[in-house]
This record gives sequence, C-alpha cells and structure tokens, in this order.
Amino acid sequence: MSLTAPAPSALDPQRRRRADRARQVADVLRRQVLHGLVSDGALPSESDLAVDFGVSRNTVREALDLLRDEGLVDRVPGVGTRVTCGKYLHGLDHLRGLAETLSGAGRVRNEVRVSGLVPAPGPVARRLDLQPGDPVVYLERRRLADDVPLSLDLTYVVRDLGEHLLGEDLAGRDVFALLESISGRSLGEAEVTLEAVVADAHSAAILEVAPRSPLLMLERLTHLDDGRPVDLEFIRFRGDRITMRGTVRRASPKEATA
Amino acid sequence: MSLTAPAPSALDPQRRRRADRARQVADVLRRQVLHGLVSDGALPSESDLAVDFGVSRNTVREALDLLRDEGLVDRVPGVGTRVTCGKYLHGLDHLRGLAETLSGAGRVRNEVRVSGLVPAPGPVARRLDLQPGDPVVYLERRRLADDVPLSLDLTYVVRDLGEHLLGEDLAGRDVFALLESISGRSLGEAEVTLEAVVADAHSAAILEVAPRSPLLMLERLTHLDDGRPVDLEFIRFRGDRITMRGTVRRASPKEATA
Repeated sequence: MSLTAPAPSALDPQRRRRADRARQVADVLRRQVLHGLVSDGALPSESDLAVDFGVSRNTVREALDLLRDEGLVDRVPGVGTRVTCGKYLHGLDHLRGLAETLSGAGRVRNEVRVSGLVPAPGPVARRLDLQPGDPVVYLERRRLADDVPLSLDLTYVVRDLGEHLLGEDLAGRDVFALLESISGRSLGEAEVTLEAVVADAHSAAILEVAPRSPLLMLERLTHLDDGRPVDLEFIRFRGDRITMRGTVRRASPKEATA
Repeated sequence: MSLTAPAPSALDPQRRRRADRARQVADVLRRQVLHGLVSDGALPSESDLAVDFGVSRNTVREALDLLRDEGLVDRVPGVGTRVTCGKYLHGLDHLRGLAETLSGAGRVRNEVRVSGLVPAPGPVARRLDLQPGDPVVYLERRRLADDVPLSLDLTYVVRDLGEHLLGEDLAGRDVFALLESISGRSLGEAEVTLEAVVADAHSAAILEVAPRSPLLMLERLTHLDDGRPVDLEFIRFRGDRITMRGTVRRASPKEATA
C-alpha cells in the first residue's frame, strides 16, 4: 500500500480536532449499535449526545456520519438516527460453524459454486499432511444469512472424509457438523488468522458489495480431536455483516513467552 | 453499504472462471508470504506455480496481481515475484500489549496525541462500572513499528490507575505493562470484538494510508485479575500491517450453548 499525503482538510487544526472528537464519539456509539443497546432502535438526540460526550452538535453530526458510512445507522431529517446495522456477532471463543454461531440470529443458506476432487497444490498438501498432488475435495460456497450474502468460503478437505461430504446437504448444513457425523469424532482445535483486506472486483461482485469494500479474511486449519488436520478454509466475510467477538486471558509470563 | 451491480467483466463466464481460480491460488500463496515460508523472499516462478496449482500462467499472473494489490508482493519483470509484506503477526490467544506481542519482530514507538482527564460519557462509564460524568483518563496514541504507523489507539482508563499512567513513559511502554506495575496486580481477561472497517479520510491521514483502505478495528475491555474493568480501548490497525493469529478449540455441545 503506497503512502499518501494527508488530505488538506486533515491538516487544518480546527477540523482535525473535530475529526478526532468525532471518531472518539463514533467508537463509543458503535458498540451500542452493534450490540443492540439503543432503545427502540433509535440513538439519543444530537443534543443529548452532545451533552453526554461534552462536544458540539457539529461533532456529533460528524460522528453519526462516520457510522452511517459504515452502514450502521441511517439519519432521517426531523426523525433522528435509526440503527440499520445488519451485522451478526460471530463467536471467536469456540470453534463453530457459521450456522452454529449465528444460531437464532439468522437463517444460513449455502450456495455451492464448485465441489469435487482436485490435486492438492504443494502448500495445501503440506498443511493437510499429504503429498503434493494427492487428491483433496475442494468446495467453494457463497453463504447467505437471511438471504443477504455474508461470506465466500474456499474449503479443502482430506479425501476420505471429503468424498462423503459431496453426497450430503451442503446447502443446508455446516461442514463442521457434517465432518463430525462422517468421521464419528469431534473436531479438536484450529489455527486461525484474521485480516482486514480490500475486496477485489470479482469477490465484491459475488458478495454484492462495492469493489474495494473492507472484508474480514479468515484462514482456518481444523484438526480432528486426534490431532489430524482435515479441513483448510479461506473465508472472506463482508466487513459490514460480521463482528468477531471473544474473550482473551492474560497469560502468566511463562506462558506468554512460550 | 449499498449493493452494487457486478462489474461487466465479472459476468463473462471465462473471466469469472479465471478470477475464481486466481483467488484460489492467491489465498494459498498468501499464507506462504505472511509466514515467511518462501525461500529467500522470492515466490516460485510463474510456470512452477502454474504446474503446482494446475492452472494457466495467466491465472497465476492474476493471482499474483491480487497479492500485489494487497501490498504483499512486488513483481519485477525479468526477476520474478518478491515478498514485500510488512505485516506483523499479532497474537490472539493471550491478552498482550503491542510491544509484548511484536517482541523481536519490530521496535514499537508510541506518539501520544492526547492525554488527560475527561468526564466519562454514559456508555464508557457503564462498561467501566462508573457513573456517567465520572472522570476517566483518556489517551490517544499513534503507534509505530519500525517507524511505520501501525495503529491509532483510543484508550479510557479508570482514574485511580490512569492518573499514575500520565507520569509514565507512554511513548516507550505498553499500557498493559504499566497498569500491572501501577496496580500491583495482573490483568485478568478482556472482552474483544474485531471488525474490518474502511478508513475515514482523517484516520487514513494519521495512519498514512489511502482513504477507504481496510482497517482491522479492535475493541477491548480489559479487567484486572479481580474482575474489575479498568481499561477500554478502540484500536484501528492498518489492514496491510497486521494479521491476528490464534488457536480455537471445539467446545463440548454443553459449552457451545452456554
């Protein structure tokens, strides 16, 4: 990413001060919106917010503009600021499939774009403890919650389990639940990485967002409870539809350096 | 976020197929790049990659373009594809400050933009178990690793601990380490949320990225080991500089529904 000169307005001290305060207000309000903590889906009035945060009404308006640009609220002249957030909370504490983690919050449906056997490219084979070129099952699915696209999932599954997947209800069920029923074992642990990336034009079209929209990119290597790696996934979540939520604990100094 | 019609090229079946395959190749290569798994910082040649992935060289080129657009690689005609990734791996498994988690990977420096007492807005007060308007210490810091901006951190700390922070070396040390030394206690657990958001113009200028670049937004409420909430943070990480990494375990059905 190339460095960019700050926009001129960002250098004007007064505007800068207001923008800093607007960000501060927006960040605090963001959680209220995400967690449905505002009563009747309406934010307090601009003047109440100005008093609560000790800022001007102009600053409050700029803060609400930031949240509107993220698709979290809508501002209706004469009515006020309404929550329009379509974000789902996705648990990070336990290894769970999408339908499991959204349970109760949204109806998940999967469109299978590709499914079948492919030779494993070298890096995929190494992570699944296979030889390069060994056949693996490859799945590509667009996943929707309440009929709005949520993610695009690319999945590699070891052949002995994956071949059984192909006959299952991939449109209606999570791969995790199917893998446990096919293998007769529980899943164990998964290595995950999370990044914020920009949507390329083609991924944006599939996810029905504007090109260069922010995506939450999840890579996950999942093992059975006997430690065998069986499932490698690359998932692009729409940034405006998913919030990851979890709990992190402080390690003892010894653990922290482990 | 409004829905957008797919770009015309995305509808051409042949281009669509190639774009799907390019994404598939790019996702697998992404991890090699992020984790420094390529030898001497150079990716294999286009023709080797084409063989390994069973795709055309045009598809490989399109995959490398995707990684280049994310700032992960650079393509030098006649030389090949070099890793230019400036991403740091940030641990998700334990609660750690930035300098702690990047230990050894980069030198962290903090620019303190704002520090002082402010009246807690209602939602901040509630999370820190205070009354609205109670004074809290507010810090705003730009954090750099190896002199490149990495994050913009907005932090609220309870007054009794926060006031001592103000006299400490905030430019050189993590707030977490300082809170433990001031309180004489360990930190306990933290509630975190992670989202991919777009950079507004002002945040982009501070972080030295183009407006509308993807940011990884972390909200974190940290408790002492006696359960008292003491530190509420809102952190914008540059998407092109941070990858979160952790391990997730499958819960027993009982835990999963808890």
